[in-house]
Amino acid sequence: MDKINLAQKFTLFSEQWSPRVIAEANGQYLKLARVQGEFVWHAHEHEDEIFFVVSGQLIIQLRDGRVELNPGELFVVPKGVEHNPFAPVETLILLIEPKQTAHTGDVQSERTVAVADQVWI
Amino acid sequence: MDKINLAQKFTLFSEQWSPRVIAEANGQYLKLARVQGEFVWHAHEHEDEIFFVVSGQLIIQLRDGRVELNPGELFVVPKGVEHNPFAPVETLILLIEPKQTAHTGDVQSERTVAVADQVWI
Repeated sequence: MDKINLAQKFTLFSEQWSPRVIAEANGQYLKLARVQGEFVWHAHEHEDEIFFVVSGQLIIQLRDGRVELNPGELFVVPKGVEHNPFAPVETLILLIEPKQTAHTGDVQSERTVAVADQVWI
Repeated sequence: MDKINLAQKFTLFSEQWSPRVIAEANGQYLKLARVQGEFVWHAHEHEDEIFFVVSGQLIIQLRDGRVELNPGELFVVPKGVEHNPFAPVETLILLIEPKQTAHTGDVQSERTVAVADQVWI
């Protein structure tokens, strides 16, 4: 039972679009990710997904609009809603979602990291 | 589907030890709270509880130690573990826990706010 310092955890990896698990609670994982550029359009049929921006800027493209998240801002993408994150600069984010959530949802992409291969830091 | 700015949400209330709900995802509530001083010893039999410090300092007293959380740090209190938060100065925190979680757990205190009375902001 140790505390978790987000800034310290971000020093432990440099890969982009490769979420690291930092905590588990009530069947949810808290994950950190470095992102830059555009991800892929996808949806999570059964899981809501929380995006919280630590630094940088994350634009969550939706089919009917977009949400621009700056540091200290969060957004919940409801289950079933197609979205495609885009970061104009390297951006550090905290994700909260059920343990079984695949980060590319229903889409298999070159960026897909299998749930079983997700790394704890 | 609006984004949520934590700093802006904190301007909407001033009461201490009175969590406000800001988002829901996968049966979990995200709540903001202003805290200062000592809370009460309690445990949540069935729910893990995440504490994330936005500003100030939160000391989570445990029966066998204590965790000192500064801004950007979080801690998961596992289900069943007795804890008593203490803040030496007014501290702004983000809580993540199942919707049905009573903030004073198994203890009825003058500070208890019934789950049904929790306010969305």
